[in-house]
Amino acid sequence: SSLRIAVIAGDGIGPEVIEQAIRAAEAAVQRYSPARLEWNRLPWSTAYYKKHGHMLPPDGWDLLREHDAILFGAVGDPSVPDRITVHELLLPMRRRFDQYVNLRPAYLFAGVPCPLVGKKPGEIDLLVFRENTEGEYAPVGGRLYPETPAEVAVQTALFTRRGCERIMRAAFEAARRRPRKKVTSITKSNALIWGMGLWDAVFEDVRRDYPDVQSHSLLVDAAAMDLVRKPETFDVIVASNLFGDILTDLSAAVTGSIGLASSANINPTREYPSMFEPVHGSAPDIAGRGIANPLAAILSAGLMLDHLGLSAAAEAIRQAVAAVLAEGKVRTPDLGGSHTTTDMGNAVVAALQG
Amino acid sequence: SSLRIAVIAGDGIGPEVIEQAIRAAEAAVQRYSPARLEWNRLPWSTAYYKKHGHMLPPDGWDLLREHDAILFGAVGDPSVPDRITVHELLLPMRRRFDQYVNLRPAYLFAGVPCPLVGKKPGEIDLLVFRENTEGEYAPVGGRLYPETPAEVAVQTALFTRRGCERIMRAAFEAARRRPRKKVTSITKSNALIWGMGLWDAVFEDVRRDYPDVQSHSLLVDAAAMDLVRKPETFDVIVASNLFGDILTDLSAAVTGSIGLASSANINPTREYPSMFEPVHGSAPDIAGRGIANPLAAILSAGLMLDHLGLSAAAEAIRQAVAAVLAEGKVRTPDLGGSHTTTDMGNAVVAALQG
Ligand SMILES: CC(C)[C@H](C(=O)O)[C@@H](O)C(=O)O
Ligand SMILES: CC(C)[C@H](C(=O)O)[C@@H](O)C(=O)O
Repeated sequence: SSLRIAVIAGDGIGPEVIEQAIRAAEAAVQRYSPARLEWNRLPWSTAYYKKHGHMLPPDGWDLLREHDAILFGAVGDPSVPDRITVHELLLPMRRRFDQYVNLRPAYLFAGVPCPLVGKKPGEIDLLVFRENTEGEYAPVGGRLYPETPAEVAVQTALFTRRGCERIMRAAFEAARRRPRKKVTSITKSNALIWGMGLWDAVFEDVRRDYPDVQSHSLLVDAAAMDLVRKPETFDVIVASNLFGDILTDLSAAVTGSIGLASSANINPTREYPSMFEPVHGSAPDIAGRGIANPLAAILSAGLMLDHLGLSAAAEAIRQAVAAVLAEGKVRTPDLGGSHTTTDMGNAVVAALQG
Repeated sequence: SSLRIAVIAGDGIGPEVIEQAIRAAEAAVQRYSPARLEWNRLPWSTAYYKKHGHMLPPDGWDLLREHDAILFGAVGDPSVPDRITVHELLLPMRRRFDQYVNLRPAYLFAGVPCPLVGKKPGEIDLLVFRENTEGEYAPVGGRLYPETPAEVAVQTALFTRRGCERIMRAAFEAARRRPRKKVTSITKSNALIWGMGLWDAVFEDVRRDYPDVQSHSLLVDAAAMDLVRKPETFDVIVASNLFGDILTDLSAAVTGSIGLASSANINPTREYPSMFEPVHGSAPDIAGRGIANPLAAILSAGLMLDHLGLSAAAEAIRQAVAAVLAEGKVRTPDLGGSHTTTDMGNAVVAALQG
């Protein structure tokens, strides 16, 4: 029997990098975790929207549910508001499929120029557990007296004890399996007393169940500072939707390139399919030029294989990416080179084939 | 006639650094902008709260209004919730006195070790205009079903067109007076469509009035990344209350030390006194040891003198701090040295006295 993967390559550089991710996943599975992968390519994107008036067909969500996982490129295009592209596809997917764990690793690979002074390969090695279904991204708010001087907007963050607790437990469980066993919870309860007040209260309760894990709370402003001053002190970070968004782009920057930042949007109960996507987005500025770094997408495909139980293939992808970076012969522009997306994909496939 | 300055040294390292700021201000004024400064020291702090049950006396706000400016150290102590210390003094002051401009400069001084690879002194030189009275910090929210599994918290950000417009105009006016004439507006309207949607709409309106200023919008996650990758591309940043908070700590980190980050909380109409404070906070971990860097407080006093019209003295303070840092003989621990708060204060006073 085969594993069914829905592929939404989407907009901009999405299709360019996803093609390489599929090639790498195929190469890895073939050699390390024999399994049949079935790639079901769905055309949902801004172009699709312009033709059909919706980002996905009415039965789109049902169709996705028939898959074992979703490999996602990016959505977003300057010609259509994010209110459509992002809010009709990406954000509702995270919520509908209850993908409440947004896992985003950041690792300083050998061969990757680090923008920080004196950091050694492997010295930055952290996992961010970003809450992915509620908090600041709750679709709650509105605008009153539009386009008049009296205009007011409200944007309401909604936190539930259950929502905070489940992402925190996921973070603690992961920390338990790592050598340093440390969890940092990101807060801002000194200003946002209600939402972050609940977040902190739940953290105090949850941490009591993990006496073997070192844990503490850190203000988001201090965390941003520490990611620059001493990123090596972080192991597992657990953060709300918005804080996780900001801190994962920052952790991508300090580990050398957003072109390496992978992510998994996981529904741990497996009631719904999980979704795997590079963090970089559609990058309209470089789209169509074949110069995007496909490693974030390839690493995301690796996270997907791991989720699907193909852990040898997943580990092989990570090793192949590490080897290609360490060798440093093939480098896309974001890494200071001038190789293409396909060159990079070829290098990883070659490394996987041995 | 003399200028009356209310001094709230507050908690932790607040009193230590404020003492040096007063010395530096006196030295600067004496030599460069003859004026009489009257320092009215107010004991409001966590210790005061523990004794009296409130952070400031009932007539405290009226008393403050009789001053030309407020020099503020820091409030916050592990023994009392921020909900009291911060929410009864610092945050209401910003709102009551309509200090809607929170101006926070970041500059890479010569002699200061930069955590980023290859940045030269003066290469990072930016001003953040942080909105200081509304947005995410609006005191609006609550918690329901406390301490039960059903618990829910809401935290509502409130944005007004007037509130967005006035901070943006302040940013554009400042950019006009700088050589690069560039404004970056920080947004996240792809996720927070209502609050940040209004922010963006106002920005589109305001920028039309400043055709001589280059302006654009940047997502907060991308901005965090760019502050690490290419901080030299920023000139003036305008941001909401929360985004300004996060990005100013980040810009302090990339310019070497939070011990150098100054700020002005300005009421531009001058109906109420403006307030000047170092960004670092009370830092309970190093309080009482006399090792805090007083330069952030000293630079904040410089911003205050400028606001009071004593611009020669203000400029002298900035030059003296730059000279002491460039010389590099006196360095507090945050700058890699082992000098004391007083040593650093002495060095600045000596530089001011010539
Ligand atoms: C103490 C805290 C509420 C405050 C803020 O978030 O505004 C501080 O971090 C600052 O930046 O002045
Ligand atoms: C596109 C945007 C809404 C999204 C987010 O903020 O979650 C992106 O930045 C991400 O990090 O996946």
